[in-house]
Amino acid sequence: MDSTSQMADFSESNFIQALSLGKTEKTPVWFMRQAGRSLPEYRAIRGVGSILDAVANPSLAAEITMQPVKRYGVDAAILYSDIIVPVHACGFGIDIIPGTGPTTDRPFEGESDLKRLANFDAKTDTGYVLSTIEILKKELEVPLIGFAGGPFTVASYLIEGKPSRNFIKTKQMMYTQPKLFESLLWRLTEITVDFLSAQAQSGVNAIQLFDSWVGALSPREYRRFITPCASEIFSSLSKFNIPMISFGTNTSELLGLFVEAGASAVGLDSNTEITTATKRLGDKVAIQGNLDPVVCLTSVDNIISQARQVLMDSAFAPGYVFNLGHGVLPETDPTKLVELVDFLHQNGEEIRKNERASATLANREEHIK
Amino acid sequence: MDSTSQMADFSESNFIQALSLGKTEKTPVWFMRQAGRSLPEYRAIRGVGSILDAVANPSLAAEITMQPVKRYGVDAAILYSDIIVPVHACGFGIDIIPGTGPTTDRPFEGESDLKRLANFDAKTDTGYVLSTIEILKKELEVPLIGFAGGPFTVASYLIEGKPSRNFIKTKQMMYTQPKLFESLLWRLTEITVDFLSAQAQSGVNAIQLFDSWVGALSPREYRRFITPCASEIFSSLSKFNIPMISFGTNTSELLGLFVEAGASAVGLDSNTEITTATKRLGDKVAIQGNLDPVVCLTSVDNIISQARQVLMDSAFAPGYVFNLGHGVLPETDPTKLVELVDFLHQNGEEIRKNERASATLANREEHIK
Repeated sequence: MDSTSQMADFSESNFIQALSLGKTEKTPVWFMRQAGRSLPEYRAIRGVGSILDAVANPSLAAEITMQPVKRYGVDAAILYSDIIVPVHACGFGIDIIPGTGPTTDRPFEGESDLKRLANFDAKTDTGYVLSTIEILKKELEVPLIGFAGGPFTVASYLIEGKPSRNFIKTKQMMYTQPKLFESLLWRLTEITVDFLSAQAQSGVNAIQLFDSWVGALSPREYRRFITPCASEIFSSLSKFNIPMISFGTNTSELLGLFVEAGASAVGLDSNTEITTATKRLGDKVAIQGNLDPVVCLTSVDNIISQARQVLMDSAFAPGYVFNLGHGVLPETDPTKLVELVDFLHQNGEEIRKNERASATLANREEHIK
Repeated sequence: MDSTSQMADFSESNFIQALSLGKTEKTPVWFMRQAGRSLPEYRAIRGVGSILDAVANPSLAAEITMQPVKRYGVDAAILYSDIIVPVHACGFGIDIIPGTGPTTDRPFEGESDLKRLANFDAKTDTGYVLSTIEILKKELEVPLIGFAGGPFTVASYLIEGKPSRNFIKTKQMMYTQPKLFESLLWRLTEITVDFLSAQAQSGVNAIQLFDSWVGALSPREYRRFITPCASEIFSSLSKFNIPMISFGTNTSELLGLFVEAGASAVGLDSNTEITTATKRLGDKVAIQGNLDPVVCLTSVDNIISQARQVLMDSAFAPGYVFNLGHGVLPETDPTKLVELVDFLHQNGEEIRKNERASATLANREEHIK
């Protein structure tokens, strides 16, 4: 393949086929946080300081993006970036403190703080991300995933001022100042649409919306506050005709709402079994996931045994991409992920096919119901 | 009522009736962590130091247990205690660091650490808890809830050595040393059965199993590792004929397994809607929950408006006890909870009844299906 054809089209790749509910010859796989601290080659070139500095350096960011593709042979690259890149770029005043996470000294508290998010133009403010994509489109031999943070998750960082477990300030604003909260979510939605559209125009082959902490909301709260935003994001992006994956942790009760909002695929964490999601979501949605990242800290035998179970669970998913239930843990031994990817590529479709064949009619009916 | 009759029987109380799927004249309510830091009268008598010292003082623990009953007029008291009381009492070497939580310098790492849990006799080692129950049975005019931590949650504190978000060490042990992990869970199960049986013999009117973090497991993992333990706990306790509530956060996918294990009621966190749980769990199980604790930090108007929605959601639950989705937050204004309890007692059953009456036949079928 020459690079021109690669830039144009990965539609026949196993990754895009799986997300489009098409045919796969091998089970496609990538890992959330595949580029990052678990890779010695990453630690070697990354240096110290904020991840935001590395993201703002296109040749470095492109190199980091490609490292796991080279090392693991995964079926997709994901842009080396962070969900707070756009709000950082528009001058809100937020940074990522190593070991802590996104932190701001001036949390979002009122109407006037919206001004700190007023100016965002993806091409101007995050041109470096688009430059990274341009480099990658010339170099990569696999599809490239673009991404953005979901409105709830980004809002929670702005409101809490730091990573949170209970989202108390965020929910207080949602309950007591719903208009303000909606204004914030809506502004983040506009930024996200702009940012993801620019990524799509630059040639990413799929996008993932990481609303990692949206599982803190009830379905009713999601429907009221997040559905309008997620629907706007997915419908604005639909013209690019690329798969759109929606992911969050503890979202078992929200998966159907992801689909209603327009996601073409859902990323599952390890708590929701793939069989359950397949039953609930029907035959129009691809599924991605969901090996527990902690499994990857154990022996190769155990990793493969549990990956086999995940593959069996996925047998009746209308489209399926292997992934973890959350990001690769920093202490993961990358040589084990190499073996996992080899196993999946060599055996994945066979295991899934055998599982379908061995299911009795009764099981099959239960699976596809 | 004289105290003798109170000791004997609260079977006609709204709380026990609701949990037994019987008739309720008022919607019963209690709050997880109703006794605690949100109450000024608690802070006044509690003093500094470990909660474990306060728990070990029966007259103090009884007084603290009764404070929220006096203040809020809730329909049940819950023993002032902590889920690590038995493992602390048997000499494992674990304490509760204020502001941090359960902490041990010597986490559970191997077979030899089982010896640190070898000796537990509820009457000898936690006699103070039973003395607290005896005091309360003379004083209380509402049912008393006994409780214990679930095996996974207690095991996670012993293995991690401190509160954890990802349970990495716990899951690693589960994956790589399943026999050791099962031995630990099983020993904790024996301790829990002994501890809860002693509480039941001393006269508690219901028990709640707090497996607060078991939602970190997938249904498959729960079934393999926790179902045997939970089944043993509930079946051993069944001879006492008291309602048994199973609670954990992020357990949307596990609720059916709680019931299979023998729980007579499930406590819902705020993520799972009561209507969904009612549909999934059928007509043999009482439901408790699930107002988001953060709501209680907002205005009384908002608290009552959201409580009204919870009541409407509960209309078709076969038995229903109002509660929060997790514990009362320390910053909660207790005067607001007084108003909430008054509202629930005055309007709860009326709102639930109206919701049932106004449901069209179609809605009704959807609700009870």
